[in-house]
Amino acid sequence: MKFNNDYKLGKNVVLGKNVKIGDGTVIYDNVEIGDNSIICNNCVIGEPINDYYSNKNYINPKTIIGENSLIRSHSIIYADSIFGDFFQTGHRVTIRENTKMGNNCSVGTLSDIQGFVKFGNYCRLHSNVHICQKAVIGNFVFIYPYVVLTNDPTPPSNTCIGPTIGDYSQITTGSLIMPGIKIGENCLIGAGSVVTKDVESFSLVLGVPAVKKCDIREIESKEKKGEKHYPWMCNFNRGMPWKDIGYEKWLKIKKFE
Amino acid sequence: MKFNNDYKLGKNVVLGKNVKIGDGTVIYDNVEIGDNSIICNNCVIGEPINDYYSNKNYINPKTIIGENSLIRSHSIIYADSIFGDFFQTGHRVTIRENTKMGNNCSVGTLSDIQGFVKFGNYCRLHSNVHICQKAVIGNFVFIYPYVVLTNDPTPPSNTCIGPTIGDYSQITTGSLIMPGIKIGENCLIGAGSVVTKDVESFSLVLGVPAVKKCDIREIESKEKKGEKHYPWMCNFNRGMPWKDIGYEKWLKIKKFE
Amino acid sequence: MKFNNDYKLGKNVVLGKNVKIGDGTVIYDNVEIGDNSIICNNCVIGEPINDYYSNKNYINPKTIIGENSLIRSHSIIYADSIFGDFFQTGHRVTIRENTKMGNNCSVGTLSDIQGFVKFGNYCRLHSNVHICQKAVIGNFVFIYPYVVLTNDPTPPSNTCIGPTIGDYSQITTGSLIMPGIKIGENCLIGAGSVVTKDVESFSLVLGVPAVKKCDIREIESKEKKGEKHYPWMCNFNRGMPWKDIGYEKWLKIKKFE
Repeated sequence: MKFNNDYKLGKNVVLGKNVKIGDGTVIYDNVEIGDNSIICNNCVIGEPINDYYSNKNYINPKTIIGENSLIRSHSIIYADSIFGDFFQTGHRVTIRENTKMGNNCSVGTLSDIQGFVKFGNYCRLHSNVHICQKAVIGNFVFIYPYVVLTNDPTPPSNTCIGPTIGDYSQITTGSLIMPGIKIGENCLIGAGSVVTKDVESFSLVLGVPAVKKCDIREIESKEKKGEKHYPWMCNFNRGMPWKDIGYEKWLKIKKFE
Repeated sequence: MKFNNDYKLGKNVVLGKNVKIGDGTVIYDNVEIGDNSIICNNCVIGEPINDYYSNKNYINPKTIIGENSLIRSHSIIYADSIFGDFFQTGHRVTIRENTKMGNNCSVGTLSDIQGFVKFGNYCRLHSNVHICQKAVIGNFVFIYPYVVLTNDPTPPSNTCIGPTIGDYSQITTGSLIMPGIKIGENCLIGAGSVVTKDVESFSLVLGVPAVKKCDIREIESKEKKGEKHYPWMCNFNRGMPWKDIGYEKWLKIKKFE
Repeated sequence: MKFNNDYKLGKNVVLGKNVKIGDGTVIYDNVEIGDNSIICNNCVIGEPINDYYSNKNYINPKTIIGENSLIRSHSIIYADSIFGDFFQTGHRVTIRENTKMGNNCSVGTLSDIQGFVKFGNYCRLHSNVHICQKAVIGNFVFIYPYVVLTNDPTPPSNTCIGPTIGDYSQITTGSLIMPGIKIGENCLIGAGSVVTKDVESFSLVLGVPAVKKCDIREIESKEKKGEKHYPWMCNFNRGMPWKDIGYEKWLKIKKFE
């Protein structure tokens, strides 16, 4: 129903095998899309960066979207970014230039990535997440709705220091991460927290400002009585690379890298 | 100006009398739209659910929009949902599959309903509200900007327990409702609250985490000196079914059901 | 790449010299756009107000966008608004009727201005800011992501009292401003604050509810050791009218008015 070949392609666009492009979508110059990927309707891929409006000799930087990706409708992805395989987005996503995402990442509806950021593999941004410039995010980091990462400690200023988030950490709904904050691995940031200090690995922090409540390995499972839920990788595998073999076995082979 | 018959219709679309459809709108298979409804420009109604991308024999589930509805531009409503009469949306609304809304509901600009949810009648979601899957919401519930309802108590997990909200309750700006929380009838959730415990009917709760401040029936009116404002139905009737006869009289007849 | 003359114009649209209009954009009746302005693709300018749907004799009110403006794609600007020169927006901005903005203002991606509001000159709204009706905002006010201004003290009611914000104040990420609150000049509202009381000029307030932490003139610079950062105008000039001569000199001439 969606794919009537009613789209526009710029110059030097390279489409892999079986790529589908939705009606009303525009793909600008120098975009590459991997095999079997689907770009739904009314998307903009390779949106020209600001220089385009003032520079007559503007050349659109390269944009790469990996194989088996699914970009849902009305999303805008600027030029000069690179996304790995199995990349997915919700609707109306905005991703600015110089964004790097590994494989198997997803970005939810309305999320807004300001560019100049780096994500590892298997990161999941839910709906309406805001990622500031200069953020650095590890692998298997999930970020929940209405989380905002910030980068200016004395607004407005010329300082721009993005937060860093370690592997496996979970940044839950509505929390704010202050500029330059370092969140370790396997952390859990509670809903509605304002994180103003660095967070040690394996910590649950919570509140405004966020303070440490416990080690995440003390948190009870809601699913298996008497057991612990974290590290979550032992209890959750939907879409994860250890789905078929379990996290412990997978750790030894780390197939995803 | 908006309606130049420049839209696309799928198969088995049933349009009532005097239905208007804006330019650039796409209505997919098996959508029914009631009499006198207006779908503005660049909307997507009956958006195919995920199965569409992988299943060759995909059949789009039915979607029903009631009479006298007004869907503003750039909204996306997935298939397999049902909305009553006098349904209204702002712009760029996203509503996923398996959403049920009664009559006279409205959903504000940028709001994001994740599907598998149920609303009663006369619910109003303002701009940029996020409703998680499995939420259950009564009648006359108003939800204000940047409120988020959540459903996973130990993220990430396989547990999904949506909040429930009773009739007449008001969930004000920027509050977060934790997974499985039950909010009674006639509650008032203060701005910026994080609601981590069930809330008794007629309570004002406030803060991070939210605690009970008073019975809502103690709150002074800002409009009539010396009087109380809540229950609000005695002091507010814009668009309400008791507009012409008053809430007390209407209670005896409850015409809306 | 973007400008193939594939747009629609209503009646009495006045376009200045060198105006560019992107593909898929619709400009309704009685819009004026100043010289050298660029309206990118898929925008709606002069969106008819609600009366349009019910009034057969509807006439679209005038909308004015100043010179040298840049409206990014998918933005919706209602009729009956006026924007000064050098106006800029991000993507998917929504601006309702009766919005007045001075010169050199910008509105970030996904921001939502509810109309019936007034801004001075050089205001900057970052991404995803929500401005309620009846807000009054001075000059050089910067508002950061996910800030919400509110106007109903006893929701729902018929009272609508917008906040006011004085010149040079900075409202940082995720803060909520309660109805009718007056924020003075040169204030700094900390991230995630809920502002429930008026704020004196030169105050840093913080927390839920926000309390005064210090005078902003006590805050250390992160850039110049031993110096103070605020008033920020002495340390930040990107895009500001004092860029070439310094704030002190500029104050004496105030060229922007």
